[in-house]
Formats: sequence, C-alpha cells, structure tokens
Amino acid sequence: MDERAIAILGCGLIGESWAGLFAGHGYTVRCWDIDPLVARRAVAGATAIASDIVSTDRKAGKVTAADDLAEALTGASWAQENIVERVPEKQALYDQVFRLAASDLLIASSTSSLTWPELTSGVASPERILTAHPFNPPHLMPLVEIYAADRQAAERAESLFRSLDREPVFLNRPATGHIANRLSSALWREAVNIVAEGIADVEAVDRALVNGPGLRWAVVGAHMAYHLGGGEGGIRHYLAHLGPSQERRWADLGTPSLTPEVIETLVQGIEAETEGRPVQELASERDDAIRRILEALRHPKAGEPEA
Amino acid sequence: MDERAIAILGCGLIGESWAGLFAGHGYTVRCWDIDPLVARRAVAGATAIASDIVSTDRKAGKVTAADDLAEALTGASWAQENIVERVPEKQALYDQVFRLAASDLLIASSTSSLTWPELTSGVASPERILTAHPFNPPHLMPLVEIYAADRQAAERAESLFRSLDREPVFLNRPATGHIANRLSSALWREAVNIVAEGIADVEAVDRALVNGPGLRWAVVGAHMAYHLGGGEGGIRHYLAHLGPSQERRWADLGTPSLTPEVIETLVQGIEAETEGRPVQELASERDDAIRRILEALRHPKAGEPEA
Repeated sequence: MDERAIAILGCGLIGESWAGLFAGHGYTVRCWDIDPLVARRAVAGATAIASDIVSTDRKAGKVTAADDLAEALTGASWAQENIVERVPEKQALYDQVFRLAASDLLIASSTSSLTWPELTSGVASPERILTAHPFNPPHLMPLVEIYAADRQAAERAESLFRSLDREPVFLNRPATGHIANRLSSALWREAVNIVAEGIADVEAVDRALVNGPGLRWAVVGAHMAYHLGGGEGGIRHYLAHLGPSQERRWADLGTPSLTPEVIETLVQGIEAETEGRPVQELASERDDAIRRILEALRHPKAGEPEA
Repeated sequence: MDERAIAILGCGLIGESWAGLFAGHGYTVRCWDIDPLVARRAVAGATAIASDIVSTDRKAGKVTAADDLAEALTGASWAQENIVERVPEKQALYDQVFRLAASDLLIASSTSSLTWPELTSGVASPERILTAHPFNPPHLMPLVEIYAADRQAAERAESLFRSLDREPVFLNRPATGHIANRLSSALWREAVNIVAEGIADVEAVDRALVNGPGLRWAVVGAHMAYHLGGGEGGIRHYLAHLGPSQERRWADLGTPSLTPEVIETLVQGIEAETEGRPVQELASERDDAIRRILEALRHPKAGEPEA
C-alpha cells in the first residue's frame, strides 16, 4: 500500500474537486467513474485545480484516469467515494472495492444525505468505511465532517485531511445532514419564513445575513458568539439572564411550507437580487471572495488596513 | 437644525460605539445618559473609536458629553437612542425629546428586542420614530436593520447610514428580532439541539459553522447560496428537485429546551473550546479577524495570494 496513492470513485464536480485537492498536496490520484468519459474529463479539471493550490515548497501529484476499478485501487490507501446518493449502488461498489483493494484501504464517502449506519448495514467490513462530507467545493472550503465508528480509521482521517489543509470535524454519532447542513437548513427555514410572512424581501434577508451574523460566523461559531455576547460572565451569564427570552424567540420562529406561492416569491426575489446575472458568474465571484477571506485570516498582515 | 449634529441617547457599549462611528465620519456628536458619568466615560471610548476609523481624507467630528437632554439635542437632526430595553422608559424619553428638539429631528432606536408598534403606540409623532438596530459592535459590523413607517424618514436613514459606510437593510413590516436575530436564533436552536442530542460537541459545532456555512454566508446570503447550489437552473431548479427533501430535513430539526442539563453541557463545551481564555481576549481576536475580512473584501488585491 502506498500512503500517497488515492482513488477517487465517482468523478462529478465533487470527485473532480477532491482529486485536485489531493493532487495539489502531492498525492498520486487515480480517477474512476462508472462512465470512463467522466473520469477523463475530471483529470483535466483536477489538474488545473491542483496547479492552482500547489505551493512553492511542494510538487503537484499526478492525476490519471483509471480504466477499471482494479487499476484505480492498485496500491491505494484511501478511496474517496462520490457516486450517486443511493445506498444499493454505494454498497455494491464497496463490496467490489473490498475484493480488489489492499486490506488496509479505507473508504470515505462524501455523502451529504446518507448516514454511516445506512451505508454500512449488511456490508462486510463496516469499520473500513467512514463518512467524510466536504463543504462544496472541497478544494476551497476547509470543512470536512467525519463519522468513523473505528478509532484507527478516525485517526487516519484526521491526519489525512489535516495534510490537505482541511478542518476535519468529528461527529459523536451519525445524523442526517451531519452538522453543517442541519445548521444551514435551520437558518434557511427562518429565511424562507421571513420572506413568506412578508417581513422582508429575499435580497434584504441575504444582505442582513452577509453583513451581520454571516460575517461573524466566518470567525466564531454560534455557541462562541453567545458566549462572547454574555460579557465577562460568558455563556453561563447569557443563559441565566437571556435563556428564557431566547426560548420565547425560538417559539416565535416560523415553520413555512414550500408551497407554489412561496416558491414563486423566492424565485422572484432571487431574480431581483441577481438582476439576471448568470449562476456561474455569481458562483465564481463567491469563490474568489472566499479565497480572499481565507487568505486574510491566514496572513493577518496581508489584509490589514494601512492606516 | 444641523445635519451634521447627532445626539446619542444612552451611552452604554452600543451608544459609545455609535458615537465613535458618527464622529469617525465627521459628525458632531453629543452624548447624553441618565447617568452623567456614563456619558463622560463614553466620550473617551468614542473618541478612540473615531480616531481608529477616520480616514486620511476627512477629520473626526467632536464628541462631547451633554449635561442635560436639551443640550444634547441643540441643533441635532438625528437622535440615536440606546437606553434600557423597556417601553415606558423609552416612551418617556421620546416625549421629552419631541418637546426639546427641532421639529425635523428623527429618533432612531437601536432596540434589538422591541418593535416599532410597541415603541410608538400612544406616542405623539410616531412617524418621527424608527427602529435602526445595529449588529454589535456598530462601529465594526456593517449591518443596520431598519423599520420606518414614514417614507421620508426611511430615505433619511438610508442616506445617513450609507454616509457611515454601513449597510442599511429595510424590513417591510416590524418583527421581533428583526431579521438577523431571527436567523441567529433559528441557527442556534439547531446548534443547541446537535449538542443536546449528543450528535457533536460544542467546539465541533462551532468549527463546522466557521469552516463551512459561516464562511460562505460572509459572502452570499442563504437564499443566494441555495440559488448557486441549484447549478444553471438556480433556485427554481433546486426547489423543484430538492424542495421536498429540504422539507423533510426541516421536519427532522430539533426543538430543544434550555434545561439545567443542557445549560451545563453548553457551559462545559464552551470551557473546553475556550480553554479558559477570557471573554475580552476572545472578543478582541474576533473583532480583529472581522476587520481583516472586511478589508480583504473591500480591497481585493490586499488579500490575494501571491502565487
């Protein structure tokens, strides 16, 4: 087994981004997809990503397309799986992988909607499977949410993702939506409610988030934010004094439904906000801005005002 | 009336920060508080804030403490009110202000927990009162959430806060918690649930938020994020394909209570996360990081990687 050899299984946008991230950190990457054309296309994309993120003190690893699963897995220590979000397809793939791969290869699933028990029930070696959900796109966003039942698998995951300059975050038990998507869903439900109830427009909600709590949550989490909001007494003081009013506020939050009327209001709101600019252009601007934030947080001097 | 003269009514941390922000943008600021000592202390703090944010092409305005309300309001065009969050005290102050001030002075309340109808019911000139809730601290965070029943008051608020380099966001109708605190509450409820249900620790939840959705929300709002997540078809495509699964996810979110056990788990989680570092030090680090982000977003070149 070669600790620097990685198999990417499933080469859509997520797989391609992973491949680029691994290669950019010097790993040798083999891309496999049920459709060989998809794997070959991903090689080009991943190579470009790798050359963007490779630093002066290391060389990018090679990214190639594997014609079959056996070739992708030869010598690999880690398989990052990003195929379609359906249990039977994933489990059929895992069975094949275990037959073909070295005995200490681990399979990490990028699944966003499935949980570890769903993925592993009835599988021969559940301890060799873990969930490792990136925040899209994986080569840009630091977060990787991990659940591993096996301690050694967890340690290997932590060390591997740290070597990719990612932030591995471990769940104590599996949960649908892991952490980040649960938080996103909870916030978005109220964002939809505010629009559905006529409190504010789509664009107003988005601007409030970006210039207020979103900006803060790029730096401190929600628990820490309330801790700092409690003054010297911290979260204990906050909860003692404002816990009851927070509970009243929770009771006042909405539970909207995505009715045709609500959907139409959201779509029109986004049209007003984007003024017809294409998704690709907006997404590219978003990613550039996120890159600048990450750079400013990493290298304080670069982002400081000159005054 | 002097359009550059501002009265700050209530000089706790919020009032002091407002005073510094106005003075840093060249306004003449008079600070009044029910406790004259508090007003005098705020002058020192506000003067320091103003000198930090004043730019090379403008001079800071003068900040002084007013001995009485009449002096604070002399010639002022705008009163930013930040006194205790109780309706009777606020209304008693508004009545006094209207008796003493020029007829076109507006009162903007920084209230976070009260709404415009609550503040104005029974008040003589409701159209001269608006809510203008900053995100703490006002001299740093761009967001100001505004509700004004009167169009002219809204226009003056927009122009004033823009002149302070803030992002005014208007509500279409008053709502408890305005926008940002409703969104924060909604997210935090699930953040508490994740900890209470044993899915992940306090620190894991905070790290997931900061390295994933929080980082993204510093750049694009929640509605826009789902729009960009929908690919070329945008939010319409997203809602058509993933709306039902989003509704299932909403149904799976938690409704925790802040029981003594949950509070103890949160407090212990924060203690593990902060490792005993004092609140003031953590808050100051947070604010420095937010400053770097704002600078990086304003001046793209300053924050870009050199590679």
